[in-house]
Amino acid sequence: MTESLSSTELKACREIFGTDRFLTDPADCLAYGYDNSRRVAMPQAVAFAANHDEIAALLRVCTEHRIPLTARGRGTNTTGASVPIAGGIVLTLERMNRILRISPGDRMIECEAGALNGDIQAAAAKHGLFWAPDPTSAGFSSVGGNLACSSGGPRAVKYGTARDNVLGLRAITGTGTSIKTGCYTTKGVVGYDLTRLLIGSEGTLAVITEATLKLLPKPEVTRTLRAAYRDVKSAAEAVARLMGQPQIPSALEFMDGDAVMLAQQHQDSGVPQGTGALLLIEADGAPDSIESAVRAISDAARGDGLIELRTAASSAEAEALWSSRKALSPALRKLAPKKVNEDVAVPVTRLPELIDGLGELSRRHSIRIVNFGHAGNGNIHVNLLADPSDAMQMKAIEACLHDVFKLVLSLEGTISGEHGVGIDKRDYVGWEIDADTLALMRQLKQVFDPQSILNPGKTLPP
Amino acid sequence: MTESLSSTELKACREIFGTDRFLTDPADCLAYGYDNSRRVAMPQAVAFAANHDEIAALLRVCTEHRIPLTARGRGTNTTGASVPIAGGIVLTLERMNRILRISPGDRMIECEAGALNGDIQAAAAKHGLFWAPDPTSAGFSSVGGNLACSSGGPRAVKYGTARDNVLGLRAITGTGTSIKTGCYTTKGVVGYDLTRLLIGSEGTLAVITEATLKLLPKPEVTRTLRAAYRDVKSAAEAVARLMGQPQIPSALEFMDGDAVMLAQQHQDSGVPQGTGALLLIEADGAPDSIESAVRAISDAARGDGLIELRTAASSAEAEALWSSRKALSPALRKLAPKKVNEDVAVPVTRLPELIDGLGELSRRHSIRIVNFGHAGNGNIHVNLLADPSDAMQMKAIEACLHDVFKLVLSLEGTISGEHGVGIDKRDYVGWEIDADTLALMRQLKQVFDPQSILNPGKTLPP
Repeated sequence: MTESLSSTELKACREIFGTDRFLTDPADCLAYGYDNSRRVAMPQAVAFAANHDEIAALLRVCTEHRIPLTARGRGTNTTGASVPIAGGIVLTLERMNRILRISPGDRMIECEAGALNGDIQAAAAKHGLFWAPDPTSAGFSSVGGNLACSSGGPRAVKYGTARDNVLGLRAITGTGTSIKTGCYTTKGVVGYDLTRLLIGSEGTLAVITEATLKLLPKPEVTRTLRAAYRDVKSAAEAVARLMGQPQIPSALEFMDGDAVMLAQQHQDSGVPQGTGALLLIEADGAPDSIESAVRAISDAARGDGLIELRTAASSAEAEALWSSRKALSPALRKLAPKKVNEDVAVPVTRLPELIDGLGELSRRHSIRIVNFGHAGNGNIHVNLLADPSDAMQMKAIEACLHDVFKLVLSLEGTISGEHGVGIDKRDYVGWEIDADTLALMRQLKQVFDPQSILNPGKTLPP
Repeated sequence: MTESLSSTELKACREIFGTDRFLTDPADCLAYGYDNSRRVAMPQAVAFAANHDEIAALLRVCTEHRIPLTARGRGTNTTGASVPIAGGIVLTLERMNRILRISPGDRMIECEAGALNGDIQAAAAKHGLFWAPDPTSAGFSSVGGNLACSSGGPRAVKYGTARDNVLGLRAITGTGTSIKTGCYTTKGVVGYDLTRLLIGSEGTLAVITEATLKLLPKPEVTRTLRAAYRDVKSAAEAVARLMGQPQIPSALEFMDGDAVMLAQQHQDSGVPQGTGALLLIEADGAPDSIESAVRAISDAARGDGLIELRTAASSAEAEALWSSRKALSPALRKLAPKKVNEDVAVPVTRLPELIDGLGELSRRHSIRIVNFGHAGNGNIHVNLLADPSDAMQMKAIEACLHDVFKLVLSLEGTISGEHGVGIDKRDYVGWEIDADTLALMRQLKQVFDPQSILNPGKTLPP
């Protein structure tokens, strides 16, 4: 446990926030000490920022007194990225949730970083627009958090992740210096691209305070298809075909045979016997072009190993097709009180090797592994199921996880496709990124945050 | 004129390249001293790299002896970005033009940086794929050059620029350190995004030696439309409508009234009388969906101020519709021996204010200004026409240019949408980017290139 803030430090912070927006009571601090990783650490204080300038002032105080600062949105990340493991101050941006401006003709929305993804979607929808990132948490996660983690989601297969859908940022570095990145147009090549450097940096380089988001026209209709394959290889070949034709699916979700079986046990959704891999596919577009999109996607889905291809004719049928995917999470929870959910990604053509390799690791470590995820990006959620009361099994999980990451890297994959590094994967980053490149990243961190006060202990290995 | 290389320096370089790939004859050097900006500066030597390791070795020599190094592809940029104004060594990557691997199922191609954009397109086309960046120079410009400048082109409106279409890079910093950025998947959040930091940095941070490019499925058919409007305001409103519906055009080119008139004088392509602004629009897709795409685009193009909307029924007709756009460059050349071609961008809804403002500046400075460009990105090529033998006029051009940039920035635009900074716009960068953000960029440059040997004098203002 780190020490309390000194009276000088407290005084400086309260000059910025008053007493009602700078809390030090342990009960208040505890509420801001965890995130969806279920890890927890106690900060010395929680600051509720109302605007950009307050954050700049706070960062100058933190720099002067070398106080660690962890910025957070709604703490929905799963990797411990917003857990204040070095203590210090948690800065919450939840009250900075204003939409500053929406310009539908420019497909642009400007907001404070604490605005919820869901509020952005609602504001954009009024003009027939949407913002692409759609993490599961979209309804209650903040734009700032989405940007800090470069959130994706199922739609990323067609529309990209946070990194692909931001025009510019306002942010404050570790020294309290305000910067402005990017521009208000979809093209711009003046200066270095700091926007994307900050996106995905998990608050270790700067605190994002405002963002200009790129909006996209909302497709009027979506259609759902479900394709059952004999084995993973046939499904992976179908994924490559689906991604190789111009009618890119707006979602392309994968479930392996074990995942299908589990879901079926939980709730029968009519997946045929002998299904070794399932694809759930969504097409979107205008009413008068959706049929041809569905045709193109159906053609691409057909091929060796296809057992059944179903297209939903109504939204009720679509829901029925999605039900096996949706039954999966409760089924997994029921089966294993603790699941380690990784989110590795490999090139699409390596998916069969990945799933085969995971099967082998499952047998070697006696750990049940269930796989599903965003197939179009090769981004697979690898779920290692365990009983947390079984110490031996928890040890096996760790050993298995090591082998999973080694397998993924041997297939030219990445250890995190969308969840990020946080604390959970920090020690594995050096397996993926070579020492010289990592050293350069550390030097960049030094430039942005010379005192190392921003979210210490995250993203880069120590 | 800088001094010659010392005998120690020469020896060190010749140990890497031999004598036949390290040239110091002024005649040889001159050929590598200019680019498409028509500026020229003499380097002391030209090195022809054959592989990554040679470049790393050369950079270590350059660092040790503080020799400036300007890397270049084919020198097609228009801003002086590859002109070696500090002398030193020009490193040409033209012989590093191998395609290392193509994996159509992963929509990925790996190549050396000297590979031509056109060769990438040809290799990709065999598998029904393409790489999005399509600058005018595509046939003979290199991938490395495209990345250094973050090239766009007409297709960027739908498919993005270089920055949006790269998975990862191999590069060498100013100290000769090899780094590897990004990954082989379309999603990845491990470490900081160095890929996009290098893209558009004009060789000032590192020399890109290899790239993994993201390919896209090639649409089977394209259709061309031409819409003539009464005035720029009506056309800009149509652009906002076109960009606000899901069937994004694959090209959306704009010409102002003066540009239309000039093109018509050069070659009549039947644009109706009274046209104040013209849009050339392309739709792409599959054969069975193209009609509905054309319908959606036509609907969006229609509105107040539309004079005529024509759709090409054949490729000959499409060519005829494009002819006014294509007649423009020769028409401009004929009219004015010197044209200053800027490539500013503003948010789409500000286009009318931009064109009106440019008209006013044209009158105030007595400089004819003709505007056309990539309307969907708000990216307008502003052509200031002048007679280079008229010193007064050349002075007026400079004053006018200042006012153009001020106008663009007042409309929340950027002074360069796709051509980049190079030498030409270096002195204006500080108008767009605030001092603190610029200072941070300079510190980042220091990390990558502590001796400031990489392409000195480019991108950032001195």
